[in-house]
Amino acid sequence: MSKIHNFSAGPAILPQSAIDASVEALQNFSGTGLSLIEVSHRSKEYEAVVAEAVQLVKDILNLSADYEVVFLQGGASLQFDMIPMNFLPAGKTAGYVNTGVWAGRAVKEAKMFGDVNVLASSEDKNYSYIPKDYAIPEDLAYFHCTSNNTIYGTELFSFPKTNVPLICDMSSDIFSRPFDANQFDMIYAGAQKNMGPAGTTLVIIKKSLLEKANAKVPTMLNYKVHIDNGSMYNTPSVFAIFVCMHTLRWIKSMGLEAMEVRNKAKADLLYTEIDRNPLFVGTVAAEDRSRMNVNFVLTNKDLEESFLKYCKEKNLSGLKGHRSVGGLRASLYNALPIESVQALVDAMQEFEKANS
Amino acid sequence: MSKIHNFSAGPAILPQSAIDASVEALQNFSGTGLSLIEVSHRSKEYEAVVAEAVQLVKDILNLSADYEVVFLQGGASLQFDMIPMNFLPAGKTAGYVNTGVWAGRAVKEAKMFGDVNVLASSEDKNYSYIPKDYAIPEDLAYFHCTSNNTIYGTELFSFPKTNVPLICDMSSDIFSRPFDANQFDMIYAGAQKNMGPAGTTLVIIKKSLLEKANAKVPTMLNYKVHIDNGSMYNTPSVFAIFVCMHTLRWIKSMGLEAMEVRNKAKADLLYTEIDRNPLFVGTVAAEDRSRMNVNFVLTNKDLEESFLKYCKEKNLSGLKGHRSVGGLRASLYNALPIESVQALVDAMQEFEKANS
Repeated sequence: MSKIHNFSAGPAILPQSAIDASVEALQNFSGTGLSLIEVSHRSKEYEAVVAEAVQLVKDILNLSADYEVVFLQGGASLQFDMIPMNFLPAGKTAGYVNTGVWAGRAVKEAKMFGDVNVLASSEDKNYSYIPKDYAIPEDLAYFHCTSNNTIYGTELFSFPKTNVPLICDMSSDIFSRPFDANQFDMIYAGAQKNMGPAGTTLVIIKKSLLEKANAKVPTMLNYKVHIDNGSMYNTPSVFAIFVCMHTLRWIKSMGLEAMEVRNKAKADLLYTEIDRNPLFVGTVAAEDRSRMNVNFVLTNKDLEESFLKYCKEKNLSGLKGHRSVGGLRASLYNALPIESVQALVDAMQEFEKANS
Repeated sequence: MSKIHNFSAGPAILPQSAIDASVEALQNFSGTGLSLIEVSHRSKEYEAVVAEAVQLVKDILNLSADYEVVFLQGGASLQFDMIPMNFLPAGKTAGYVNTGVWAGRAVKEAKMFGDVNVLASSEDKNYSYIPKDYAIPEDLAYFHCTSNNTIYGTELFSFPKTNVPLICDMSSDIFSRPFDANQFDMIYAGAQKNMGPAGTTLVIIKKSLLEKANAKVPTMLNYKVHIDNGSMYNTPSVFAIFVCMHTLRWIKSMGLEAMEVRNKAKADLLYTEIDRNPLFVGTVAAEDRSRMNVNFVLTNKDLEESFLKYCKEKNLSGLKGHRSVGGLRASLYNALPIESVQALVDAMQEFEKANS
């Protein structure tokens, strides 16, 4: 069958090597003669998968020995609860920046557990920019930000310098470019964008933050329990971690520098066309445009349905904007080849000719 | 390669039809031209998977219209927290029966949230029987039991009659036999035994119990939120639910009556051999012997390693007892064919001849 160009916002396109490895492992995992989904998570063959996935994260991000890495369940959404439960003690305040739906949900959950200071928000302009002009009080329990806003298409390209523990939700742009991971006290990411399939969440925590954690947290929501048990306090999301391991192998083989070159080239190609083509307009402040999620609309809204239909005919899939914002969104995660972006740009140009 | 007999306690053997369907869907899901793990969970093709999985659960268990069915993350272990968070209000007491490690963990978590009355326990005899002689006070918020104790190999074949909301962890024997599901107010089960791969948890709740739920629960731990959003409040464990759906199709095609006949035949075959063969002895009170997990030891403990080695040579896999109890454990979940049990019985008889 003809190739589908997959611009889905997540779950999203993955490297073919990870899919091929999964197909093989479902039939015969690591020479066991059993399917990956039928073996004990405590078999030596599967424990090796988790160990390698953890090591790959450490290697790719050049994490120092000060960090712990675990794979949990419940997505970034459960982290919105676990972070304040573990790290927001009574009498202290947590600082958040509200840059979109997910950042807003993180704020809402934290407020259930303690005092929250929303230091900045871009809600005034429908989250179309990243607020930059704010101070981080020195006495916060932690500061929380979201590096890429999947729904609105904005991205943080530099992080605030602060002595306060720095926590970041990197669900939709982790491993897309080099960055200094050692400046963070905690990084977390739902797997289903750049790292793997839905069903597991990467959590990276600095030991010094962990030492400050509240000990009286329900066991499944206690980071220390999961770390002490090597992601195996309870049965982990076996298949999802396996696919992550193979995706991480691919990311490591590429290297984050090459990944950034590749991702920048894809984003530049598409933003250049959006800016050139009179039928389309970007929705995000130029300096905050995400390389992962490119949001744009048609200048004539009446043509939107017709353009989406045209894209579908051209095997360009997953371009409808999130139901809460509308318009179009092209997600250009790591595994998306530039040929897919070129196919979209070609379609935009053909659609321009047909409609001018 | 030669066939492996998979006696793993979970993750465990699954029907071949579910594995075959997964292999196909990883390459081309539902005619989309995309991999199952690359499509949006909100695509109509995937929403149909969740809807069918939910309907299959309702059909197989003959659930009345009073029940809600969702697929969550975090295993049964997260349910140990969510149940008291949602259903144990201040000033009320929850009743538990402690029949093993998992039941004990459920008790420990509930105590973090409120008053708990452990109505009965079999800890005095290393959980080798099911306590039956206890009363359930009428004023409990709910009564919680565990239908099958995976680690110790005991199983409840009848459930207490009570007016108190009845909650049961059926992780390791759900769908293994017919039972009156409509007598329960809540049933939950980690998928990785009879229902599918690790990574998702089935939760069935009666609407009348849901109406009594605490509204001030963190969003991801709030049953009502997940139910109102049809298991899609956040990105679900896409692959795991897909495999569950196919496993549930297989269960429905067999029917629970036939499944019980099959499971009883397997268990009878193995227990009969354990009772006959002087080299082996069962560890569980005869009337409480589980059909899912058969625990036994060698009368001469020195032969244990040698028997396990012999089994491995015969492609009998996953027979080592849980690290907390030792000995041997053969898990005979739905998908295990009787031929595998016969192969184990043959090995026991051959081992007897070689060692007498």
